[in-house]
Amino acid sequence: MTNTNSILGVYLSDSLDLDAIYGNALRDEASDVVLRHPHEIDNPEDVRFAICWLPNDKAFESYPNLELAMSIGAGVDALLAHPGLKDEVHIARVRDPHQADLMAGFAAHEVLHREREFTTLEQNAAKAHWAPLTMRAPASRKVAVLGHGTMGRAVVKAVAALGFSVHVACRSEPQAPVEGVTYLTGDGAVMAAADGADYLINVLPLTATTENVLNKALFAKLAKDAWLVQIGRGEHLVEDDLLLALEHGHLGGASLDVFRAEPLPADHPFWQHECLRITPHIASDSLPEVVAGQVVDTARALRDGQPLAMGVDRARGY
Amino acid sequence: MTNTNSILGVYLSDSLDLDAIYGNALRDEASDVVLRHPHEIDNPEDVRFAICWLPNDKAFESYPNLELAMSIGAGVDALLAHPGLKDEVHIARVRDPHQADLMAGFAAHEVLHREREFTTLEQNAAKAHWAPLTMRAPASRKVAVLGHGTMGRAVVKAVAALGFSVHVACRSEPQAPVEGVTYLTGDGAVMAAADGADYLINVLPLTATTENVLNKALFAKLAKDAWLVQIGRGEHLVEDDLLLALEHGHLGGASLDVFRAEPLPADHPFWQHECLRITPHIASDSLPEVVAGQVVDTARALRDGQPLAMGVDRARGY
Repeated sequence: MTNTNSILGVYLSDSLDLDAIYGNALRDEASDVVLRHPHEIDNPEDVRFAICWLPNDKAFESYPNLELAMSIGAGVDALLAHPGLKDEVHIARVRDPHQADLMAGFAAHEVLHREREFTTLEQNAAKAHWAPLTMRAPASRKVAVLGHGTMGRAVVKAVAALGFSVHVACRSEPQAPVEGVTYLTGDGAVMAAADGADYLINVLPLTATTENVLNKALFAKLAKDAWLVQIGRGEHLVEDDLLLALEHGHLGGASLDVFRAEPLPADHPFWQHECLRITPHIASDSLPEVVAGQVVDTARALRDGQPLAMGVDRARGY
Repeated sequence: MTNTNSILGVYLSDSLDLDAIYGNALRDEASDVVLRHPHEIDNPEDVRFAICWLPNDKAFESYPNLELAMSIGAGVDALLAHPGLKDEVHIARVRDPHQADLMAGFAAHEVLHREREFTTLEQNAAKAHWAPLTMRAPASRKVAVLGHGTMGRAVVKAVAALGFSVHVACRSEPQAPVEGVTYLTGDGAVMAAADGADYLINVLPLTATTENVLNKALFAKLAKDAWLVQIGRGEHLVEDDLLLALEHGHLGGASLDVFRAEPLPADHPFWQHECLRITPHIASDSLPEVVAGQVVDTARALRDGQPLAMGVDRARGY
């Protein structure tokens, strides 16, 4: 049921039932922004926007009047690279402030888990074995953060608040720098941030420039026995280089939350590697009510000819 | 070997070899501040100060001219309650800023570990099982912090930077409040902070007033399935009340780092309880070079008749 001033969108995902996740929140939020599964759409030419998660190559084919493709996540690399999405179609994404907090919490947990040797503590506790461990001043431990968008800024704030020495590779000088944090810009920023780092947290967007950025040359810059926290995109990581770096001691281990193939296949060697902590792409997620609010705002702006506050700059890539 | 202007101190601990931990840092720091084990002291009347960790009841008896007892940790409850320490002896403690960062990191890790269900994630990973979990906005989760000294302030800063909703019970209004944090003072502050909290972090000092503060009345105020992070002193916790609160669901579990008896006896029921995470008093520690610097500064101030910057107010208890 659509009213006269309504705008129609379609859910496009093969792997997620987007209506099951967001449908109730969207219906609670508005009646003039209507979302349907493809099989529920009678007149495809009425569809003006799509809400997407990893849409397949033919997903957009049926909708000749599509004006907007919106990602329910922060990353839009899948939309930017999509072979079936015309250049004139706007791309937008959700920016959930909670999502950045969640990302920061995941990164902080993984750094602390390694730094304070909680795996050993848990093993000792299981044996009722009281064995204090030595500690290092957080300020003496260098944490490199790659990326300084919404996610990167939240990670930097959290890790700096824990007392670590934080060095960030960013595109441009920050508008609101955190006291004590070192910001690096320019072509050599990623390598400079990683130089001698004990921890390397990747929250870069995926672009042609950043693909394969986590490679042997970068790992060789780190302190011996460093730890990687990979919460960007699977395509950032050269998997064979990671395994070699673990073997040679440039890396002591890694927390991997994103992969080139997701779900990570059950027979992938990462699962069994004793130096890897594997999680199922849960470093952060957007909340349904926030997604719904931003989808509704964006669809209304499209309908009303207003600027898209959640729009993505295609040339920049994020 | 002491020079004419030197001041002599004694290490007093039955459980720690303080010279092994701090001796090198002390000798690197100064030659005019001299520390000895009791059996290395020829003239006990020359001893003017003691560096202590849980000194036994007779530890001070041999030193008639003792003017200062200094704790190598942040807590001085053992010195304040010591039956053999005369009222006119000054009490001092170490205040290591790194120690507060370490404490904050431990607390943040334990909150995140529970909130993001890392135990379940680790179990799934061990089975190569890809199973994303739902998340909640950190801002929707209430974290109560009891205590707002050096440790409490660091904990508040860290947990607030992770986006949680933080409510702090403090003695007085903070001089530099953190944006978004709720500060509670007065007699009802502890109960008000705990009211409906999902997490309860205890970093209170141990005084006659705070002993047994973690009891069934407090646990009953928490949200159902809440989590306790106990990094104060063992005497804060009524152990039987904790076990009952776990049984009745007022608590979902707890991270316990401090105990009435340390090391925690191997046959203590806490070790085997599936809802408890036990660590061996490692939430934080002072660093040898920082301890050495503050011991030397304090001993020189004593020798030179200057105020003791690291001194403790006996009446206040911390």
